[in-house]
Amino acid sequence: MNSIRVTIWNEFRHEQRDEAVRSIYPDGIHAALAKPLSSAGMQVRSATLDQSEQGLPAALLDETDVLVWWGHVAHDEVEDQTVERVVRRVHAGMGLVVLHSGHFSKVFKRLMGTSCDLRWREEDEKERLFVVDPTHPIAEGLPPYFELPKEETYGEHFDIPTPDEIVFLSWFSGGDVFRSGVTFRRGRGKIFYFRPGHETYPTYHDANIQRVLVNACRWAAPALGPVPTYGHAPSPENAR
Amino acid sequence: MNSIRVTIWNEFRHEQRDEAVRSIYPDGIHAALAKPLSSAGMQVRSATLDQSEQGLPAALLDETDVLVWWGHVAHDEVEDQTVERVVRRVHAGMGLVVLHSGHFSKVFKRLMGTSCDLRWREEDEKERLFVVDPTHPIAEGLPPYFELPKEETYGEHFDIPTPDEIVFLSWFSGGDVFRSGVTFRRGRGKIFYFRPGHETYPTYHDANIQRVLVNACRWAAPALGPVPTYGHAPSPENAR
Amino acid sequence: MNSIRVTIWNEFRHEQRDEAVRSIYPDGIHAALAKPLSSAGMQVRSATLDQSEQGLPAALLDETDVLVWWGHVAHDEVEDQTVERVVRRVHAGMGLVVLHSGHFSKVFKRLMGTSCDLRWREEDEKERLFVVDPTHPIAEGLPPYFELPKEETYGEHFDIPTPDEIVFLSWFSGGDVFRSGVTFRRGRGKIFYFRPGHETYPTYHDANIQRVLVNACRWAAPALGPVPTYGHAPSPENAR
Amino acid sequence: MNSIRVTIWNEFRHEQRDEAVRSIYPDGIHAALAKPLSSAGMQVRSATLDQSEQGLPAALLDETDVLVWWGHVAHDEVEDQTVERVVRRVHAGMGLVVLHSGHFSKVFKRLMGTSCDLRWREEDEKERLFVVDPTHPIAEGLPPYFELPKEETYGEHFDIPTPDEIVFLSWFSGGDVFRSGVTFRRGRGKIFYFRPGHETYPTYHDANIQRVLVNACRWAAPALGPVPTYGHAPSPENAR
Repeated sequence: MNSIRVTIWNEFRHEQRDEAVRSIYPDGIHAALAKPLSSAGMQVRSATLDQSEQGLPAALLDETDVLVWWGHVAHDEVEDQTVERVVRRVHAGMGLVVLHSGHFSKVFKRLMGTSCDLRWREEDEKERLFVVDPTHPIAEGLPPYFELPKEETYGEHFDIPTPDEIVFLSWFSGGDVFRSGVTFRRGRGKIFYFRPGHETYPTYHDANIQRVLVNACRWAAPALGPVPTYGHAPSPENAR
Repeated sequence: MNSIRVTIWNEFRHEQRDEAVRSIYPDGIHAALAKPLSSAGMQVRSATLDQSEQGLPAALLDETDVLVWWGHVAHDEVEDQTVERVVRRVHAGMGLVVLHSGHFSKVFKRLMGTSCDLRWREEDEKERLFVVDPTHPIAEGLPPYFELPKEETYGEHFDIPTPDEIVFLSWFSGGDVFRSGVTFRRGRGKIFYFRPGHETYPTYHDANIQRVLVNACRWAAPALGPVPTYGHAPSPENAR
Repeated sequence: MNSIRVTIWNEFRHEQRDEAVRSIYPDGIHAALAKPLSSAGMQVRSATLDQSEQGLPAALLDETDVLVWWGHVAHDEVEDQTVERVVRRVHAGMGLVVLHSGHFSKVFKRLMGTSCDLRWREEDEKERLFVVDPTHPIAEGLPPYFELPKEETYGEHFDIPTPDEIVFLSWFSGGDVFRSGVTFRRGRGKIFYFRPGHETYPTYHDANIQRVLVNACRWAAPALGPVPTYGHAPSPENAR
Repeated sequence: MNSIRVTIWNEFRHEQRDEAVRSIYPDGIHAALAKPLSSAGMQVRSATLDQSEQGLPAALLDETDVLVWWGHVAHDEVEDQTVERVVRRVHAGMGLVVLHSGHFSKVFKRLMGTSCDLRWREEDEKERLFVVDPTHPIAEGLPPYFELPKEETYGEHFDIPTPDEIVFLSWFSGGDVFRSGVTFRRGRGKIFYFRPGHETYPTYHDANIQRVLVNACRWAAPALGPVPTYGHAPSPENAR
């Protein structure tokens, strides 16, 4: 099997403006995300919002098997044509791993067709993630549940379509629950949304979280099923 | 229970231009669709593309429990702001019943997040619809399968997200199958896509089809579940 | 619409042996369950394990639209032929609402095909139930979340098949989450499993819980879809 | 990755009694099923009903990653304890690929909780299988649809629980459709039901069918997710 080609897209703003975030992610969140993926043998590239074509020219997307998305304060700056390039590539088979506040990115909302809204607060609560589908490849190598000592809290209702699969449910010490690891298919592309990862916590340095990232990129890599044809079509009877 | 308020939106172009279509639907497809719904006690209004605000002002949508959508040749003329008004109303709880070539409407594609493409041909094939979920309210009063002697053919692959429920599968004499009755939730709104209804066939005069339309509007009527609140939120512990 | 005929089956052992339980449910858990259903206009009958034919003769099941099941210490006493009578009736269309420790009943395990096991403890924890599908009829009239001040705790992993729908997720103060309101179809029958209801707490006197019970029985009432025929069958082409 | 250990269970009766079947499968259906799996690098063993412990002693099951099941005329001869051994092993993580008339095996019915009944006839009809989930690993390497020139016909309604995933839909020239490739999770085990394979046709010599068998065994191989613990459990808070 060829090595999976992952592009990590990070809006890369918090790290440049906020000392607290920079102290946790001195080379940017994308560098922290890259580390476990590279260690797992994937070919990893990074892309950021302020680069040319917002970091995502068509040529790069065409050579990307899985796109990892981290964005927060700059969702509105992502141009519609960037969104359309990404969405078309997902439809064509590229995997997409959307992280944390990426739930509100234009790309994710466009692929879901809902508001993707939720309840949230930042109060240093404990998060505990339970595996509810132990047969899922994204749960490989994990314990039945694991903890993050402090994270931002997200609470239901999470306004997404019915997920194809629910891999993780989160418990928060402040009294909330959340569907924190969910999958969707759109066209030939597979999508995984994963909740943890607030910029003010060292979440992406956690070994269990890194394991999920590796598993998710493997799972989201393009399938080798048929490429459907669409439009006017003769009867299969006549087609042969 | 109050009477369900249904608005039937029809682009209403074929019937004005094409004698063959007009002979089947002399008062417009919307009039044919209205008949069984009115007979079932629903409050039915019609709206067409060439009316003010494309037939769908906010005030009308606010008073609509279920919107039925028939469009084909004029999908591109539906303005983005019309689409947004409809989508927002679906998210807020309005039901949506999308018919036949409405699979390619901007509204449906926006809510699905996929291309909604499929294979098709017009060769007067027989369509046979099988009920695959006999527990579903949309299948109420129907036989295990029923036929349309001539219809346009749609074939898989149908590029939609995994449906929440599959109520009908269609068999076509030319050799195709199709997921022809499928449901989706988006926000607080319920969506039913129903395949049959090409403008050159008397499909909407068929008793089984009319039964499906009535059942679908009843099923899609707004639920009375909680209205979620979103955004920054205190801990439920503290909230009381 | 005719009144829904509900039969509440209760093993009825705790209430006879344990003063603490009897003080909460002096007439049996079945009496407490019956109250909101009767008030909602349903025809309610009760049945208990020590009655003739374990309370569930075929004639009673044939006249039952929805069977509510509460059992705990006497699961093993339910005879295989009783289980088969109930399962056949569910397949034929009777609704089934399984409560709390009924997750381990022979009937539920037989219909699920899994162990239906889970993690549990009795430590007077707070349970908070979140509605995750606000479009579902079982969530009608409920707030976005509601609480039970003390309940037995159930925790994931809950070993059930992938539910058709998840209506409620529970948060427990001791650190667990649970899929606490889930639906399944089996044959023509609809099944709802609802977690709360430990015998040592006044859970079934809670107004929100009572609302769920009423909604669940309405939802589970037999559908009026087609009765499929099975076995050797001519081609539909020749059948007409 | 270690080689997948596949056990093919065949009741092996038709081939011994019926010259027509033997001429197609001279060494038994199990030998034909083994061929593509061995060629794909799997470790394949065969087991038949008339062997000791009905071919499936616990020691063999413990060393089996994926069990392939072909049975038809002798379903009733499979003893309850054999069924329980297989079911327990599926719950513990063994994959199960159920073929054709295996829909009516005790093992499959026990895992589904439904009758698993369907409509059928033997009239040498053409079957065409359409891929409806091109992202699924079981569809890898297949065309958008493929044909079997003659097969037994199965028709809806197929009385199974809502599948977790639908990979294939079949069209039959006599007028039927069927959900012919469907997945289910039960415990830690993954199950794939695949419709084609009547004993009087050379279906298992077909290259596309062989491709599906290989893909299915790879997909059904045990996941490496957590092994849940069940029963009385302390609070996760206290557990650490």
